[in-house]
Amino acid sequence: MNKKQTINFGAGPAKLPESVLFKAQKELLDYSGIGISILEMSHRSSDFTKILKAAENLLRELLNVPENYKILFLQGGGSGQFSAVPLNLIGLNEDRCADYLVTGAWSAKAAIEAEKYGKVNVIHPKLDSYTKIPDTSTWSLNPSASYFYYCCNETVHGVEFNFIPDTKGVVLICDMSSNFLSRPVDVSKFGLIFAGAQKNVGCAGVTVVIVREDLLGKALKECPITLDYQVQASNDSLYNTPPCFSIYIMGLVLEWIRNNGGANAMELLSKQKSAMIYDIINSSNGFYTCPVDEACRSRMNIPFRIRKKEGDESLEKLFLDGASKLGMISLKGHRSVGGIRASLYNAVTVADVKALATYMEEFLRDHQ
Amino acid sequence: MNKKQTINFGAGPAKLPESVLFKAQKELLDYSGIGISILEMSHRSSDFTKILKAAENLLRELLNVPENYKILFLQGGGSGQFSAVPLNLIGLNEDRCADYLVTGAWSAKAAIEAEKYGKVNVIHPKLDSYTKIPDTSTWSLNPSASYFYYCCNETVHGVEFNFIPDTKGVVLICDMSSNFLSRPVDVSKFGLIFAGAQKNVGCAGVTVVIVREDLLGKALKECPITLDYQVQASNDSLYNTPPCFSIYIMGLVLEWIRNNGGANAMELLSKQKSAMIYDIINSSNGFYTCPVDEACRSRMNIPFRIRKKEGDESLEKLFLDGASKLGMISLKGHRSVGGIRASLYNAVTVADVKALATYMEEFLRDHQ
Repeated sequence: MNKKQTINFGAGPAKLPESVLFKAQKELLDYSGIGISILEMSHRSSDFTKILKAAENLLRELLNVPENYKILFLQGGGSGQFSAVPLNLIGLNEDRCADYLVTGAWSAKAAIEAEKYGKVNVIHPKLDSYTKIPDTSTWSLNPSASYFYYCCNETVHGVEFNFIPDTKGVVLICDMSSNFLSRPVDVSKFGLIFAGAQKNVGCAGVTVVIVREDLLGKALKECPITLDYQVQASNDSLYNTPPCFSIYIMGLVLEWIRNNGGANAMELLSKQKSAMIYDIINSSNGFYTCPVDEACRSRMNIPFRIRKKEGDESLEKLFLDGASKLGMISLKGHRSVGGIRASLYNAVTVADVKALATYMEEFLRDHQ
Repeated sequence: MNKKQTINFGAGPAKLPESVLFKAQKELLDYSGIGISILEMSHRSSDFTKILKAAENLLRELLNVPENYKILFLQGGGSGQFSAVPLNLIGLNEDRCADYLVTGAWSAKAAIEAEKYGKVNVIHPKLDSYTKIPDTSTWSLNPSASYFYYCCNETVHGVEFNFIPDTKGVVLICDMSSNFLSRPVDVSKFGLIFAGAQKNVGCAGVTVVIVREDLLGKALKECPITLDYQVQASNDSLYNTPPCFSIYIMGLVLEWIRNNGGANAMELLSKQKSAMIYDIINSSNGFYTCPVDEACRSRMNIPFRIRKKEGDESLEKLFLDGASKLGMISLKGHRSVGGIRASLYNAVTVADVKALATYMEEFLRDHQ
């Protein structure tokens, strides 16, 4: 196997489509012939308004977003939304309670943050490890909860939902940061969806919020104004200066997704790509192990260990060093769990994954 | 006068140095030979850590930031800091009071936002118009205030401080968004300084906070975690994914400032550039009028009206159209005040200002 160009399996910020980078580079000095850079453009100019509106329209088209939903482009990342969601929505019902499903590091953080603003009910017995979705029979929902919250793809632990939770009518909130637009989604089932851009739809600095209009205007009085969905919605995300360049890049990525077949095509590809890696893991006789239940293994983030369930650290180091020599980077597992993690977002190609699969097979042959 | 290249007098996002744009373009596909774009780089990679650390070190060097100050790179803009300041600091003293000096649109917004979190004392009689700094003899400071807040350059109204308020020992907080690094500043006089990058030091998406260490760890319990200075400081601004690209661009601009003589040189230039415009206004026999007291006229943002104090709208339109034909853009005053506004940030060159001055003289000759 020869030295290849760099292949980025990072968990985010992550690989972007080549054509997006080429276009961004080409236009960087002079956007659309107006004589200035996108970086220098007023957020209230007609040119930027077009960029913002185009990104919104692409999202509406790609996800069939119903008309009674607003789309916001905010700062602060997913972690900012861990606060914004309860600040805006935990007051929907008088009790200020919210139901949380905790299936990994990110939903755990969201639940802890929400405790600042109301009562948090984790709806299932605490998990010993984040390797499965607790059986729905164990869920204990609070019918007077203001909302039900979950994270449909846990980036650190590699747990992904293949179903939409039945909340018995309670407003459903979802963190889709790491599998956004990697599959179609029925937005009408949700009260709110949010996603940091830096995995499947752009670079760091902007977070998309899709929120049903009737949920606006219920923020707690202590809600910082930039996090107030109602304020941002009534100002078309221009209450204050937005992260213009990150929104521009997102627009280019959304265009790329549309030109490549949309959410359906992204899902087919992500099934194919993830299967290439899981198949090797499953047929490795335990040389590679993925701790996650097969029913909820993520197509986006595949964590695995080598030789032993708890991992053989020196062999894993050898694996990472070898990958790095072949140009494959950012395969190290999150610092809280160790091991290996391959993130296969939309911009990661089948050829990229094929290279990793080939390397995994060779490594298995050499070290089993 | 021939058609020139575009000259951007926007109030922010604003002009960037050409060399910064060239470098950003050159490196966009492959940062420093690592084979991926800065847009795709993990915020926890050693390469990004170097970018972050270099930006911090440049700020420390350019402003002689004392060692007992932390430098943070946050999301949410200046408006985000309108909330973050009281959320972190209004609890410093038990009374939860803060003194605010309100000299324009931005400090007014900051004062209103702070009322969500404590008691706000505007220290002077309300101004009829934002055209001056109320005389210090009229200030009524609260000695038990947790902090004293002001905005040292009001972008909309063109009011700039040439002195540091004497707070009688109360912690001093300053919004320097629109004159940051346009002059030297004695950081040791401040408890906290913040500045959105998109005027003098970069593009939209990142806000610098310089905060004295002993003020950390006093946040109200309802402070969103991403706005908690203590959390961000102890994580070197990497509590969650930061706005990587905006931080990178800021680093390039800071390098450019250093290579061009630092804050002292920027101040000399900004004196020279602003004098070129104010001189024409002052000697125009009232054809051009700047409503701001001469003692506090901003070097950064010069608002003016044409023919009459309240402006002659059709003549102002003619002025803007003519400027636009010559490639001079974003000279329209803020929508809340009308008229003309020329913003002369660091990246706006003497030649750029000369072009505007020449046009103003010609327009005066043709229409007085």
